[in-house]
Amino acid sequence: MRFEVRVEVRLREGVADPQGQTIERSLPHLGFAGVSGVRVGKSIRFVVEAADEAAARAEVEDMCARFLTNPVIEDSEVTLTEAAPVG
Amino acid sequence: MRFEVRVEVRLREGVADPQGQTIERSLPHLGFAGVSGVRVGKSIRFVVEAADEAAARAEVEDMCARFLTNPVIEDSEVTLTEAAPVG
Repeated sequence: MRFEVRVEVRLREGVADPQGQTIERSLPHLGFAGVSGVRVGKSIRFVVEAADEAAARAEVEDMCARFLTNPVIEDSEVTLTEAAPVG
Repeated sequence: MRFEVRVEVRLREGVADPQGQTIERSLPHLGFAGVSGVRVGKSIRFVVEAADEAAARAEVEDMCARFLTNPVIEDSEVTLTEAAPVG
């Protein structure tokens, strides 16, 4: 089975996010009011082949823990969707 | 009204993604099989204050077009959720 995967990698709460702070400080000067709490993360998308959804999720969680994230400062959210069969 | 916003910024189809390609090439060496089509994007989260959902969405779409994305090579997907009122 093929699954479309989206992994959202976010900085943990309390970890400073200079990129987000820069965006937030710039917004009022650019005419955008009322925006707060800007946090910038990564979004990684791919397709994974696995026997079933549980196997796919286990593989993706393992990838996240081992090298897609830095678990000290980041956490991740995995979304799996069954992909349409090829051909 | 306050809305929690997630903007996912992705490279357009056909635009080369060296970061994704590097992840994809590394995976088999790390013991992860069956992964293809790796694409790395950004995920930007924030809170926006606006009169209603339509106004919030219009402001966010405008931010995306003007400086959260490079529309030549990137597109964006906006997800809005009404936030719980503050205390």
